[in-house]
Amino acid sequence: MAYELLAPIASIFALLFAAFSAWRVHKGETGTARMNDISQAIRDGAMVYLRKQYQTIAIFVAIIAMALGLALGAFTALAFVTGAIFSALAGYIGMAVAVRANVRTAQAARSGLSGALMTAFHGGTVMGMMVVGLALLGVYLLYLASGDPFEVVGFGVGASLVGLFARVGGGIYTKAADIGADLAGKVEEGIPEDDPRNPGVIADLVGDNVGDVAGMGADLFESNVGSILAAMLIGVIGATEYGREGVSFPLAFQAAGIFSTILGILLVRAWKEAHPQTALNRGIFASGILVTIAACILAQEMFGGLNVFYAALSGISAALVLGLITQYFTSSDKPPVRAIAKSSRAGSATSILTGLAMGMTSAGLPVVVICGAIILAYEFAGVYGVAIAALGMQSIAGIIVAVDAFGPIVDNASGIAEMSGLDPKVRRTTDALDSVGNTTKAICKGFAISDAGFETIALFLVYMLHANLDTVLLTTPSVIIGLFIGGVLPFVFSGLCLQAVGKTAFQMVEEIRRQFREISGLKEGRTKPDYTRCVDISTSAALRNLVAPGLMTIAIPLVVGFTLGPEAVGGLLIGSIVTAFPMAIFMAYAGTAWDNAKKYIEEGHLGGKGSLTHHAAVIGDTIGDSFKDTAGPSLDVLMTILTTVSILFAPLF
Amino acid sequence: MAYELLAPIASIFALLFAAFSAWRVHKGETGTARMNDISQAIRDGAMVYLRKQYQTIAIFVAIIAMALGLALGAFTALAFVTGAIFSALAGYIGMAVAVRANVRTAQAARSGLSGALMTAFHGGTVMGMMVVGLALLGVYLLYLASGDPFEVVGFGVGASLVGLFARVGGGIYTKAADIGADLAGKVEEGIPEDDPRNPGVIADLVGDNVGDVAGMGADLFESNVGSILAAMLIGVIGATEYGREGVSFPLAFQAAGIFSTILGILLVRAWKEAHPQTALNRGIFASGILVTIAACILAQEMFGGLNVFYAALSGISAALVLGLITQYFTSSDKPPVRAIAKSSRAGSATSILTGLAMGMTSAGLPVVVICGAIILAYEFAGVYGVAIAALGMQSIAGIIVAVDAFGPIVDNASGIAEMSGLDPKVRRTTDALDSVGNTTKAICKGFAISDAGFETIALFLVYMLHANLDTVLLTTPSVIIGLFIGGVLPFVFSGLCLQAVGKTAFQMVEEIRRQFREISGLKEGRTKPDYTRCVDISTSAALRNLVAPGLMTIAIPLVVGFTLGPEAVGGLLIGSIVTAFPMAIFMAYAGTAWDNAKKYIEEGHLGGKGSLTHHAAVIGDTIGDSFKDTAGPSLDVLMTILTTVSILFAPLF
Repeated sequence: MAYELLAPIASIFALLFAAFSAWRVHKGETGTARMNDISQAIRDGAMVYLRKQYQTIAIFVAIIAMALGLALGAFTALAFVTGAIFSALAGYIGMAVAVRANVRTAQAARSGLSGALMTAFHGGTVMGMMVVGLALLGVYLLYLASGDPFEVVGFGVGASLVGLFARVGGGIYTKAADIGADLAGKVEEGIPEDDPRNPGVIADLVGDNVGDVAGMGADLFESNVGSILAAMLIGVIGATEYGREGVSFPLAFQAAGIFSTILGILLVRAWKEAHPQTALNRGIFASGILVTIAACILAQEMFGGLNVFYAALSGISAALVLGLITQYFTSSDKPPVRAIAKSSRAGSATSILTGLAMGMTSAGLPVVVICGAIILAYEFAGVYGVAIAALGMQSIAGIIVAVDAFGPIVDNASGIAEMSGLDPKVRRTTDALDSVGNTTKAICKGFAISDAGFETIALFLVYMLHANLDTVLLTTPSVIIGLFIGGVLPFVFSGLCLQAVGKTAFQMVEEIRRQFREISGLKEGRTKPDYTRCVDISTSAALRNLVAPGLMTIAIPLVVGFTLGPEAVGGLLIGSIVTAFPMAIFMAYAGTAWDNAKKYIEEGHLGGKGSLTHHAAVIGDTIGDSFKDTAGPSLDVLMTILTTVSILFAPLF
Repeated sequence: MAYELLAPIASIFALLFAAFSAWRVHKGETGTARMNDISQAIRDGAMVYLRKQYQTIAIFVAIIAMALGLALGAFTALAFVTGAIFSALAGYIGMAVAVRANVRTAQAARSGLSGALMTAFHGGTVMGMMVVGLALLGVYLLYLASGDPFEVVGFGVGASLVGLFARVGGGIYTKAADIGADLAGKVEEGIPEDDPRNPGVIADLVGDNVGDVAGMGADLFESNVGSILAAMLIGVIGATEYGREGVSFPLAFQAAGIFSTILGILLVRAWKEAHPQTALNRGIFASGILVTIAACILAQEMFGGLNVFYAALSGISAALVLGLITQYFTSSDKPPVRAIAKSSRAGSATSILTGLAMGMTSAGLPVVVICGAIILAYEFAGVYGVAIAALGMQSIAGIIVAVDAFGPIVDNASGIAEMSGLDPKVRRTTDALDSVGNTTKAICKGFAISDAGFETIALFLVYMLHANLDTVLLTTPSVIIGLFIGGVLPFVFSGLCLQAVGKTAFQMVEEIRRQFREISGLKEGRTKPDYTRCVDISTSAALRNLVAPGLMTIAIPLVVGFTLGPEAVGGLLIGSIVTAFPMAIFMAYAGTAWDNAKKYIEEGHLGGKGSLTHHAAVIGDTIGDSFKDTAGPSLDVLMTILTTVSILFAPLF
């Protein structure tokens, strides 16, 4: 019991630290009136969208909560609603701070790099601490109230539901705006990124916040909840040898993760004079080392042996190796990105072909690493070990989210600097930070995907054990049918996401073209564009298009379960992971590689900015944008929600 | 025993009919000297490539045969070599006739449509009859010699190996040439398709033969063998209730398919005055109806009941429904293609995005249809029923291959007409046939994929039964690892194929650009380009790049089997099908849809030929080319070869 108590203490610490970080952001200067105007426009657009998104989601939450209450009891419904609210809260507060940190980062950049770095990082820290604090607090309180981790699954489903809608909706919003603004502005009109003459520029900057801050936060929130739950659930049913400690360990381990993360974050502060990437890396590595030591001590104290620790370590090591693999496939100084850049010389078709090919091929290694980690974790601690390995990856989620949210904040700061006509030196400072943000974003993406893959394997095993399906044969026809349906689901889901982005980007391009055509003096910078129209297009399209993929994902396991039986759902779950995992890697790596190939050319290689080669690479980057920021990350949530919904409804199949 | 004898009779009939069709092609006129020169250049390029390809494959065949002989006995090695030789023979003879039919089709087109239709169709018929005749003959003779279908599996592996190399090699060849010629010629220089000034035009026309004739034939040959084998093998081990008839029925059923197909082909002759598409459709439908009746009679006679017939019927019906689904997603008068065409208005990025999205989404329905057919087939006749359903699809392969090979022959005829400066009326005739060829090609593609999916599920079940793995649990860790490795394999494999196409197309573009730059008077048509250089680029690149994906596919099940055990291979097999099937559908549908969206615009819609919208659609089509003709169809073979290799080596794992 004593170790469990670490959980509420750590989560309250996390929330307090979030408040402290928010205060540190808030006390920063906000700069010129022009900067404040732009920041206000971004803030308004983002908050309006987020509120509307939550209103849309609230309807589904209410209906599902009623259904859950009738079918599975009031506590499950309560847990579900709490999960949804906590997720929304983390997203809301995190984003509310991020849209205030952007202008303060731009202002800080006027006096140097280190102040800007810290302001943006404090902004990101709020999201990171909200996510891990609320996740652990919610799980702990509901477990305290019910005494049974299975009663807490509803919390996970609520979190997944909001996570899914936020990822899909935010992803459609941000990429439709980004692609639309790029195609009609940068490609067709030849004006620079973030140019105030581009009617889509505010929508683009809003998109960074609703997609890469709020959406990402909700995604990581549900991963965090899922990982803790998976380990607790297996602690109850699968690994009786660990007794009650099997349920307490995940809570304590996660608490240790929060403390390690906070220390890691404080270290970023201490070494503020170093290169920005080094400063952030130090924080991440310090967190990782601290949590490893903590896991070792906890395992020894709670289980009297290190087997569980070794399982955790295999998860942490896999995360590390995957980080290196991600860097190899997405960094502009490595062969894959160079190959894409070079192939752009023959036009956009070969550029896209090479990127698609590279992305597909690159999915192989991460799968091998994950398989290796599963084998190790299983050898050390059985099914429980697999869940602990997933939790090991999640343990430093606090700083990962912080570093990830850092990206869109500096991206916004760059935009504000450009649009307010600040000294080009400021823009260079924010651009330097932006490029750091891109690298960390890619690493975090790899982290989120592998974590989701790992975690859902653990949840799949929970489902099989919970539904007494551990005697089901691989050759059972309904299992094979389930595998097929699960396997095609990520294709259909990604297709719907990409379709929404494509359609909305098309509308955006037409609107921007219209404004350039109809508003006289716009191109010359004498008149202002109508930013609001573009914000509205993204807002309504995102809200309209998040419903279908979201509902489909919840409905399909239920339909399969009630018609083909629980074995088919087992097939469905593992089938969906088997496809979604490589697909998510493919999309994330290809998307980032195209992006960096474009940047590599922009640095002056192969003809540089404005050349035909560059033009071809921009097209590739555009396709990649919706891969890496809409469809790809949404697949993480897809995997989790399928499993949590199935576990929840398993007794009824 | 009596029914089995239908097999040798039917296969000899098929081979004789192939000879008859070849004679009918040969007696056609060959036209002007210029036409013969061009045809000769295509013929030389194609035959040189095919011979070199077979030389490359022969090395692998020899090594593997020796290994098989040592590990599994001389008969298996013999069966393997026979499979490889028969496949190569079918491809060689089929293509040798196709490269003679092209010029005769062009010449016949000078006097009208119906003669040209029949010449091209006779040419395709040779390939169709060679494929089904040699497949059935090979299986029958080896079964006769050994008395045990398991001794015949080596024949299937030999056929799959050649099929894989031919599909991958031919696919890389044809698409690198096609894309290179299109990008550098059509897009950059603005000269028409098949223009003699384009240095890549001969390589492009050669590619149609080595990829779409020889490669496709080898692919369908191995599917045909695989389907017959799967049913015979399950007849032996899985469904003892059917006794010896369980092994004879597949042979008799396939023989009935050949007879029905020959009658269907003769009917195309009889109604030669109808619209070309109608004429071909009548042949296909007639074959389908005849084989259905035959299956009904055979099942009643051999088993005294219709359950097995119903299983076959569910396969035939699924093929029909899938044909309709294929048409919906790929025809230019249906919403998906229209949406792609419309999205091209905002540039190539949205065009590609919409195509990718549409393709991914479209994979859902075919999976549902296949699942439905599996459930039905299983209800009627258990695991044996699933294999029979696959065979039901394959029963009319003869005419499907004939109609599919018809496409590249008329495509070549168009090219020859254009390059020889024949009357534009001739080109219009061949273009009308070419457009028919595109539709039938798409339907055949859907057919080949669903057939491969169905068949490999049956082969997966054979593997599980044969290796005594029918008690393996879905939750076994090694099964889960196997599922993951299997699931990522189609991604890596497709990535390697696309990479090869991208790289070679890039070389081709550079070479064509060089010739336009360095050969004076080329653009104006005063001097001739150096066609041979382009042919050489495609030839050597295809030969170089077919090795890696091919060897990987054979090595991986062995590595997994010997290190992780036979259960892991079970996971690997079903995991690979679960991913490869939707992926193949996605690539085939998206590729064809882009192609038809481009054609729709070329017909004068949305700005017509030469507009920016058209330009965007051409880029989409280029990406799609390598999807639908290289990576997509290669996945069919990938699925089969994994299963046949695993069955063969199962006793050693």
